[in-house]
Amino acid sequence: MVERNPFVTVIVTGVPGVGKTTVLTHVASILDGEGTAYVLANFGDYMLKVAKELGLVSHRDEIRKLPLRKQLELQEAAARLIREDALSKLGSDGVLLVDTHTVVKTVTGFWPGLPRGVVLELKPDAIVLVEAAPEVIVSRQERDKTRDRRDIGSVEKVAELMQMARIAAMASATLVSSSVFPVENIEGNPRAAAEKIVELVKMLR
Amino acid sequence: MVERNPFVTVIVTGVPGVGKTTVLTHVASILDGEGTAYVLANFGDYMLKVAKELGLVSHRDEIRKLPLRKQLELQEAAARLIREDALSKLGSDGVLLVDTHTVVKTVTGFWPGLPRGVVLELKPDAIVLVEAAPEVIVSRQERDKTRDRRDIGSVEKVAELMQMARIAAMASATLVSSSVFPVENIEGNPRAAAEKIVELVKMLR
Amino acid sequence: MVERNPFVTVIVTGVPGVGKTTVLTHVASILDGEGTAYVLANFGDYMLKVAKELGLVSHRDEIRKLPLRKQLELQEAAARLIREDALSKLGSDGVLLVDTHTVVKTVTGFWPGLPRGVVLELKPDAIVLVEAAPEVIVSRQERDKTRDRRDIGSVEKVAELMQMARIAAMASATLVSSSVFPVENIEGNPRAAAEKIVELVKMLR
Repeated sequence: MVERNPFVTVIVTGVPGVGKTTVLTHVASILDGEGTAYVLANFGDYMLKVAKELGLVSHRDEIRKLPLRKQLELQEAAARLIREDALSKLGSDGVLLVDTHTVVKTVTGFWPGLPRGVVLELKPDAIVLVEAAPEVIVSRQERDKTRDRRDIGSVEKVAELMQMARIAAMASATLVSSSVFPVENIEGNPRAAAEKIVELVKMLR
Repeated sequence: MVERNPFVTVIVTGVPGVGKTTVLTHVASILDGEGTAYVLANFGDYMLKVAKELGLVSHRDEIRKLPLRKQLELQEAAARLIREDALSKLGSDGVLLVDTHTVVKTVTGFWPGLPRGVVLELKPDAIVLVEAAPEVIVSRQERDKTRDRRDIGSVEKVAELMQMARIAAMASATLVSSSVFPVENIEGNPRAAAEKIVELVKMLR
Repeated sequence: MVERNPFVTVIVTGVPGVGKTTVLTHVASILDGEGTAYVLANFGDYMLKVAKELGLVSHRDEIRKLPLRKQLELQEAAARLIREDALSKLGSDGVLLVDTHTVVKTVTGFWPGLPRGVVLELKPDAIVLVEAAPEVIVSRQERDKTRDRRDIGSVEKVAELMQMARIAAMASATLVSSSVFPVENIEGNPRAAAEKIVELVKMLR
């Protein structure tokens, strides 16, 4: 059976530098303006919360130093907590937006951001892929001095990561009957992408 | 355990305009000529049948106006009915051909046509991808005045849909140990593709 | 829950002609030199072992003549035996390396080499994709007179198989929360790829 949450659940993903966080700020602002109830959950924040509660870390940077198997357990626990929080805060008219990645590139390879245990927990109606031309993403990464990103580098490497992200999105979507919704974040107009995500949310209701 | 039907099960898929229905007409004609028992099940027809039985719709166009979650339930119910019908009609020498899509493009994104619940129900031996050059598909769509297709548009958009279709096919195949079998529908010779599908069916017996 | 083996499990895959076996010989030699306990399991060897034990075949070439459903059962049984053997031979410091394919191209299509039943049994931490430029692979296949390979042919066909292999790897990885780790086998320097795989193993501990 296709299980769903009582509220609309949309996972918003994108490779580092695509402008996902900015787009989500606009989504939140539009939903606020409309009076739509929503929860915007940052997956990394929930990973940290769970890890702190378990006494495993005191700071975000320590998570990636945990044994990989421990990180995978935290990933599932974070998904569970996101859904429980949303269940307690949202009625059936609400919207859960999860800010995360379909694939995470590390020195140990491409890790699925929405593996089976995570996506079964979140039960998304849609997985949004915020995308942009690889050239645009690389130039954004170069300008981005505020965050200590480990560069994902060349245009070819960004294009490869985007391709892996699409594959991972469809593999996860196949497990839970959700849609995969690519949306372009046009340079200088993140609100346009935000509006498309809000439209999507309405159609999924 | 790898579960299989007593008969050979082949899901035949392709993007709109690739000529899948024409190819399947030839497949049916070849199997008729050989006296091979088969069931050719159109997934959309079964969706409609199930929806009518449940009193949800009276006409095909109403299905896409149902809430999305209801459509997903109909999708699984249709898969179940297709398999039950085939079980009652076919012996172990028979062939079930299912006419459907691995991915369906809508305003709410790319939906898996063979999500977990559907593919576990159908238990395919193979998922056929009927393919053609994107340019050929676009020109067929332009000529196709008999059906009220919503255009999927440019050559780039068709190529993207075909790429998503391949990804979705492999994701579904991974869940049930089926093969993914691409076959080109060469312009002007749909029988050649049909013959390859019939050969495949024989090798899968 | 994310299930893992007590030892590190890395599945090493690659299309025919990429030099996977040579790379694995170097991996084994490096691990030997370090005194690291490992099991190097060739998936095809285990298929044959299981098939012989069941009295189904007496020679390797007979496996592909078995009914396809029987081959799929052998595939799952081989995965189980690989894991059982490793459990009896390795402690928690050990490494299981499995030599196989993420996708196998045959006359009946692209078959997943790590379908659900197999990957759930093996519980890999990482799936390595040994890759090289398609042109390099084709020229290696042409030189390779020692093995009776059925040619996979043109550069385009090799590129297609590599693309399907990446998709299949990510689909399998999504089921078991493992990483996908591409590594290039540079012409004339298989040891470089081997060293990267050994580094990966250490980071996964």
